[in-house]
Amino acid sequence: MAVHLDAMTPVALLERTLRVFPERTAVVYGTERWTYARLAQEVGRMAGALERAGIVPGDRVAFLAPNVPELLVAHFAVLRVGAALVAINTRLQAEEVGYILAHSGARIVFCDPELAGQIVPPAQGAPLYVNVEDPVAGVTGSPLPGPTYAEFVEGAPVLSVALQLEDENALTSINYTSGTTGQPKGVMYTHRGAFLNALGEMYVHGLGRDSVFLWTLPMFHCNGWCFPWAVTGAGGTHVMLRGVDPARILELIPQERVTHFNGAPTVLLMLAEAPEAAGVRFDPPVRVATGGAPPSPTLLARMESLGVRVTHLYGLTETYGPHVYCEMQADWESLDPEGKARVMSRQGVPYHHATHLRVVDDAMRDVPPDAATMGEVVMRGNNVMKGYFEDEAATAKAFEGGWFHSGDLGVVHPDGYIELRDRKKDIIISGGENISTIEVEHTVVKHPAVLEAAVVAMPHEKWGEVPKAYVALKPGAEATEDEIIGFCRETLAHFKCPKAVEFMELPKTSTGKIQKFRLREKEWAGYEKRIQGN
Amino acid sequence: MAVHLDAMTPVALLERTLRVFPERTAVVYGTERWTYARLAQEVGRMAGALERAGIVPGDRVAFLAPNVPELLVAHFAVLRVGAALVAINTRLQAEEVGYILAHSGARIVFCDPELAGQIVPPAQGAPLYVNVEDPVAGVTGSPLPGPTYAEFVEGAPVLSVALQLEDENALTSINYTSGTTGQPKGVMYTHRGAFLNALGEMYVHGLGRDSVFLWTLPMFHCNGWCFPWAVTGAGGTHVMLRGVDPARILELIPQERVTHFNGAPTVLLMLAEAPEAAGVRFDPPVRVATGGAPPSPTLLARMESLGVRVTHLYGLTETYGPHVYCEMQADWESLDPEGKARVMSRQGVPYHHATHLRVVDDAMRDVPPDAATMGEVVMRGNNVMKGYFEDEAATAKAFEGGWFHSGDLGVVHPDGYIELRDRKKDIIISGGENISTIEVEHTVVKHPAVLEAAVVAMPHEKWGEVPKAYVALKPGAEATEDEIIGFCRETLAHFKCPKAVEFMELPKTSTGKIQKFRLREKEWAGYEKRIQGN
Repeated sequence: MAVHLDAMTPVALLERTLRVFPERTAVVYGTERWTYARLAQEVGRMAGALERAGIVPGDRVAFLAPNVPELLVAHFAVLRVGAALVAINTRLQAEEVGYILAHSGARIVFCDPELAGQIVPPAQGAPLYVNVEDPVAGVTGSPLPGPTYAEFVEGAPVLSVALQLEDENALTSINYTSGTTGQPKGVMYTHRGAFLNALGEMYVHGLGRDSVFLWTLPMFHCNGWCFPWAVTGAGGTHVMLRGVDPARILELIPQERVTHFNGAPTVLLMLAEAPEAAGVRFDPPVRVATGGAPPSPTLLARMESLGVRVTHLYGLTETYGPHVYCEMQADWESLDPEGKARVMSRQGVPYHHATHLRVVDDAMRDVPPDAATMGEVVMRGNNVMKGYFEDEAATAKAFEGGWFHSGDLGVVHPDGYIELRDRKKDIIISGGENISTIEVEHTVVKHPAVLEAAVVAMPHEKWGEVPKAYVALKPGAEATEDEIIGFCRETLAHFKCPKAVEFMELPKTSTGKIQKFRLREKEWAGYEKRIQGN
Repeated sequence: MAVHLDAMTPVALLERTLRVFPERTAVVYGTERWTYARLAQEVGRMAGALERAGIVPGDRVAFLAPNVPELLVAHFAVLRVGAALVAINTRLQAEEVGYILAHSGARIVFCDPELAGQIVPPAQGAPLYVNVEDPVAGVTGSPLPGPTYAEFVEGAPVLSVALQLEDENALTSINYTSGTTGQPKGVMYTHRGAFLNALGEMYVHGLGRDSVFLWTLPMFHCNGWCFPWAVTGAGGTHVMLRGVDPARILELIPQERVTHFNGAPTVLLMLAEAPEAAGVRFDPPVRVATGGAPPSPTLLARMESLGVRVTHLYGLTETYGPHVYCEMQADWESLDPEGKARVMSRQGVPYHHATHLRVVDDAMRDVPPDAATMGEVVMRGNNVMKGYFEDEAATAKAFEGGWFHSGDLGVVHPDGYIELRDRKKDIIISGGENISTIEVEHTVVKHPAVLEAAVVAMPHEKWGEVPKAYVALKPGAEATEDEIIGFCRETLAHFKCPKAVEFMELPKTSTGKIQKFRLREKEWAGYEKRIQGN
């Protein structure tokens, strides 16, 4: 390789931090505290054990576990031996996990004992199973036929963390999307993309050697938005977390001096609603990046009073997690709370390494920046996946016209900021008018009794479809269907208001996204569906 | 090009900032204030004029000017049309400038009227000359046969700043090193390298939208360490400066709320010595990155009291400027001033995108990290030049063994930080013992009467060579040769102490580096030289 061209890789970020901050705290889990020297040793040992077990460059290694230290270690060790990490969503059923293991061809499967029931070992042609015990949480045992993690690495050579990589476009990982229909697709990340994204996160979120990052975001979700690499590159501290427990989070933030965490708006909502949050105001404020569904202005305002500075961002598994974030403008600080929350709820502008993002009509023309004309969000460049693993047809479809098609509908504000309005498949078309379900939801959640809401289309003889709101009320709060509808009609065009309201606990994905497709399916059972899921 | 692979380019940083901060202040020069919208317009106009003048991708465009806005504009406009910028050292003589213009084959030469005497237009086969008037400084006229800048761009189409680049390894610029012997060599920078370096500077120096960067570092020097791109990428403000005038700098810092500047230690020394600095302490402190010669502990301590937080860094033209910087460790803050200055005077650890740097012996083996064994500093990777323009022999020599050979000698501390001890060609070998001239200089400048010092080898019958100190005294201060030598012998091994001291104003390069080779030449005139310059 030419002297001026080294393959970019996120593994180099650990190599550097090991050199610069060997004695700083890398990992905190329960009473366990690892320095970076120790983390590098654990990475080297796992890498050595992987090689000893026959893993060669190009292989895949799967992990089914919560945010335990071994999963962080795997984000470096698997890459170090040239293999790709397949971190699997822990809420998937055995059938889905089985599909992913078979499709990825993982040669080793690491599994948390509590999740072993989601894996059905095949009779033959089996990968090697490793039981990743979690003594900190008291989760032990070997339910799968294979060694414990301690046995797997015992006596293994400890490799250096320096990776000599030939091709920066080799894979770091394959992240399977939880498709709402059809089989999961394996999104391929590269060393180049992961490195650039990690640098971007370090810069934009102000990660440094004094940062303490709390792992509320599942690491299986877009490789934790590349934060395993970003926090490490900054020399900050990873505070591991087995599950999202609001009381535990509220306890850890002051105890470990947490400076940053990431999470879906539902996680923020859980925090705000927790009894332990009463009277709490973090000082200095904690920086939180939130993605998934757009947080409502109501939620953003509540976070401010909790001492949580929310940065809203947006991306997909196909864009290494975040692709845009809501960069605060200086003059926004002087807006009233409602106005401030409104601008902060936008998705924003591209990261520095992710310049290319457009909002386009069906003919791939940019929509006008009028905050009104909806188009599809499309991206290209170094923050976009390499493609879907062994699925050329799906890749070609997603990359039609040389851009990645997000399936998300948004508008562009006159200042260039984008704001999402809906999933392409969620939009409601009522009597020829587009209705953004997100806009309706943001109105519904302003009602004081409402905890959260999801709006979907329901069939209507005259209009084709109309909005229906599914609502979860706050504990002890009460409201009727008529009250909710009347409340919406005060501020929203009447054709946009829900025509029906149903009260229930909302169905969610493992990352806290509301599963609107389940609600829609309920409404449209027996109908020929208008909308093609993907 | 694949959807996931966009060519990295620093031009994209302007494209992004134009989108995010169009109304923020980009450039300040005298009473001129440009927003980013205006800067982008100026870039687009220069690019349009370059295209109109026939510049095509692969061409070279030269600039001989101080840090005026047009030179900043050229850092984007020349790249935007696919050409490479050749920014020439303004202190070179006509003969040297002529060599560079001929060797680079520049098709257009932009020149400040005051510097026109350094250009001798050829009678035929001439490039196009453009006289870059500077009305802010009252420098006008058309001494070279060609249009003024205003005439050159008049009526030109204004191109968008969005660059569609095919190959990220295409050239952004060629920076000619001022070789101490032989002809200058043209160091080639690429879009990929410049982009990564700019991101690195943004992160490490904490550049953001509120940063105000004062241009004390000449932009012709390693493209201003890539700060034209870094400050722009951060959305900060460039404060232009025609010349390094301490009084003006001390005035501008509070006036424009300057947060950052860069400069050689001599620039810092000039500031500390200026009468206007008396009683000044900047609050908040100004962040200054300093390279070139290692700043003495004495100077670092004086900067602290001026409210200047110095970050020491090191690199060469061949590494886009900085390659390592002295990352502060948390426990250094509690050291006494002398101890703190001592650790801060190290050159440090690599940038995040510039991982690969070693200190090696003649057989390319790493020296032990014992803070004593000297070796040559070598680098490779994304922060190293593509090579010397049209000079394969020099490129092959510099890249021997797959690493760029810096010609600098350093040691590695037990904590992994490097510290330079000498230029390979400056080291003194006295009776078989290596003497670091830098170590001797740092001792000499501790003498209260000494302003600055340079130590070189002088011939000696018995020892082969011995140290001699050239010393500039502070205004009004007095010291004798014996006093200086005696002062050194108090703290330094006697064989390392100067055997002679000469008082004079030290010869310097345009960037403030002391030209030791001139002093050495003086000592060795008539001798067959031991040391081969490069």
